[in-house]
Amino acid sequence: MQTPLKIAVVGSGLVGSLLAIYLKKAGHEVHVYDRSPDIRNITFSGRSINLAMSDRGWKALDGVGVGDAVREIAIPMDKRAIHLVDKFNYQPYGQEGESIYSISRGTLNRKMIDLAEHAGAAFFFDQKIWDVTLSDATLHIGESERGEWTEKKYDMVFGADGAFSRIRHRMQRQSMFNYSQEFLNIGYKELHIPANADGSHKLDKNSFHIWPRGEYMLIALPNQDGSFTCTLFMPFEGENSLAELNNEEELETFFKKNFPDSIQVIPMLAEDFFKNPTSTLVTMKCFPWTYTDKIALIGDACHAIVPFYGQGMNAGFEDITVLFEKMQEFGDDWKTIFSEYQIDRKPNADAIAELSYRNFMEMSSKTADEKFLLQKKIEKRFAEKFPEKWIPLYSRVTFSDRPYTEALALGDFQNEIMQNVLKLPDIETIWDSEIVENKILELLAKA
Amino acid sequence: MQTPLKIAVVGSGLVGSLLAIYLKKAGHEVHVYDRSPDIRNITFSGRSINLAMSDRGWKALDGVGVGDAVREIAIPMDKRAIHLVDKFNYQPYGQEGESIYSISRGTLNRKMIDLAEHAGAAFFFDQKIWDVTLSDATLHIGESERGEWTEKKYDMVFGADGAFSRIRHRMQRQSMFNYSQEFLNIGYKELHIPANADGSHKLDKNSFHIWPRGEYMLIALPNQDGSFTCTLFMPFEGENSLAELNNEEELETFFKKNFPDSIQVIPMLAEDFFKNPTSTLVTMKCFPWTYTDKIALIGDACHAIVPFYGQGMNAGFEDITVLFEKMQEFGDDWKTIFSEYQIDRKPNADAIAELSYRNFMEMSSKTADEKFLLQKKIEKRFAEKFPEKWIPLYSRVTFSDRPYTEALALGDFQNEIMQNVLKLPDIETIWDSEIVENKILELLAKA
Repeated sequence: MQTPLKIAVVGSGLVGSLLAIYLKKAGHEVHVYDRSPDIRNITFSGRSINLAMSDRGWKALDGVGVGDAVREIAIPMDKRAIHLVDKFNYQPYGQEGESIYSISRGTLNRKMIDLAEHAGAAFFFDQKIWDVTLSDATLHIGESERGEWTEKKYDMVFGADGAFSRIRHRMQRQSMFNYSQEFLNIGYKELHIPANADGSHKLDKNSFHIWPRGEYMLIALPNQDGSFTCTLFMPFEGENSLAELNNEEELETFFKKNFPDSIQVIPMLAEDFFKNPTSTLVTMKCFPWTYTDKIALIGDACHAIVPFYGQGMNAGFEDITVLFEKMQEFGDDWKTIFSEYQIDRKPNADAIAELSYRNFMEMSSKTADEKFLLQKKIEKRFAEKFPEKWIPLYSRVTFSDRPYTEALALGDFQNEIMQNVLKLPDIETIWDSEIVENKILELLAKA
Repeated sequence: MQTPLKIAVVGSGLVGSLLAIYLKKAGHEVHVYDRSPDIRNITFSGRSINLAMSDRGWKALDGVGVGDAVREIAIPMDKRAIHLVDKFNYQPYGQEGESIYSISRGTLNRKMIDLAEHAGAAFFFDQKIWDVTLSDATLHIGESERGEWTEKKYDMVFGADGAFSRIRHRMQRQSMFNYSQEFLNIGYKELHIPANADGSHKLDKNSFHIWPRGEYMLIALPNQDGSFTCTLFMPFEGENSLAELNNEEELETFFKKNFPDSIQVIPMLAEDFFKNPTSTLVTMKCFPWTYTDKIALIGDACHAIVPFYGQGMNAGFEDITVLFEKMQEFGDDWKTIFSEYQIDRKPNADAIAELSYRNFMEMSSKTADEKFLLQKKIEKRFAEKFPEKWIPLYSRVTFSDRPYTEALALGDFQNEIMQNVLKLPDIETIWDSEIVENKILELLAKA
């Protein structure tokens, strides 16, 4: 058991709330601050993508006994539903019984705050943190950045305040702090598929629906009330971009042409599209994540990633799992806990950032590349025939708690093999032959 | 001629002062702000590396008629003087008559401010800019970040305020602003070789002196008063690091062993070393560099690089050359001037950042790599025999005003050829044979 401390968690999002539960159950006094009002009292903002909880997320929830409470609001998705312009098919995600779980961000966040309050954490909403004194874990709180501030001193502060973290902002101003933020030239819009009159879903409930179109795509994830939260990803400018959709007519023409089967299920298309804000996508990396034994960043505050692997929340929750392992191992030695935590997590955060970015590249540019499509066909065929010899990268990321770095290395290894396979003469015609199978087996055996 | 505007330049360093001269001569009212006191009234800080002015720098100075005034305080260096532990040699930099020029940063900065004042720019020192309103080019100035501020509105603001620019700091907080800062695990210390009693130099005056030692190195550049400004580059931690030099005894033992011929010329070694601060080395990249026709970043404020190519100031001065070309081309259309300026300069800034970083990698890790040393020997031999076929990368960067992007591409091209050459059987023994020569000629002809 650790000596009880007075700990502030900045940010009442998913990671902040779950961290509060862990810290509270470890015996600490926990104050959670958020600059926004209590999300339980407001309607959500129309700029979220539904979450896809997978193994790493469940592990962190179950690790503190709240997994079952969250399962009540989650919908299993065992497959992708692929909507092409002129056909439709299902692609299972993994083995029999493997699913990812759709949860509305707002619903989950409200539930997590309830659970954290129930565990004994105190929440302070509408409290804007403008600065932190790193050396003594003092928060500076006030109405405005240039107005009066009050000070609150803690034993320790966690920055769980997201990609634009104020806690990190102070750390950035130290010397030797490495930092990068890079935006994609792609934005996203939330759209909405309402439930049928009887409360049932208009599309298959247990699927992650996707309308892949190269540089742009539409996705839809189920909600418990029968609706789907849809997200349209699209370049800001150029051909097939948000800049081309300036009025109802342009929007409807575009959807009729490119997402014909979506028209009847998104009745409020124009209203949603022009009312909801366009959000940006950023990859943010930094190091260090901690300052002595006083300050630690966690979740998006130290590793914001693009959403194309569905791992943002899962990676943030896994931070907590690892932090808790270190707490158990090193007791009251918080300097070592923080140091081991960041050394363990930083390479894994970089790995999932890279994998997420690559998934975007695959979706946006490689789906039109014949060689790439052929590669995927060969991999799929081989993995189905030799499931023990070829674990798909997606499964390794999603249905596993092995480090992301291993998944990245596995992906690189598989890709190297496939580059060799693609060099076989006449690969376009012999791709499903034994020659190709044996070549892969030979290359796997050699490694 | 442009319509006269009221323009603020934030930062009275080298780039800020030269930019002020250009803007003043183009007919504008120019106010230069600096958070520090007038450098002409204070002694310099003991944390500078002497500057090496090369072709791009001279072009910018001559473009506004101040080159000759600067030549008066510059010392040509036509060669490297390489101090190994047990031997010494000279390596000419380029062709006959090609030199880089050593200038003390403080001396040059004072001269540049004099020249800018003489051209009619007004300087305001000890004025701390804490924020800028991007949309209307208003500066917010005050004693402290949290104290009272006054506002000064301009038609346009240039941020020439260096790697830790406050103007950029505001731009960073916009959405879609890409940004990265990455520190090397290496620090540097200024040391000093005084003049002889008769005012002459203790080492060859017209050389860039270098004591290369792999992960660490010492350099010395001449000053006009007979002294040299030395810089020790060294890892912060590990073997042969700053962390190992904690007292006079450790320092002197280290220098006697590793820089034996420096001992007699650095009499104040311990005093310099323990008094002078340890500085850090950062590569900073960002984009965009401008905001409408109101704000533009220039020099280190938008592209800070490590000093291992001696191009930091030269690249900043070249920004001004390009900006001025765009001013001449587009007249009062400042939106286009800014847009064309950043489109032109960004890839070149990235290229010199990459080249500078590679030079650090070469010095720090590759100097112990046999293959790399062999490659350099082969390149040198070939370039000497066929100077028209193999322009050394260093010359392309230093003695040319062709874009940095071309130099980077040339370096990559030459490196690709050499990777092929190094694969020749028995290359270690035949490296100076005609076989190798012909192979390079063949590969060059094929390209």
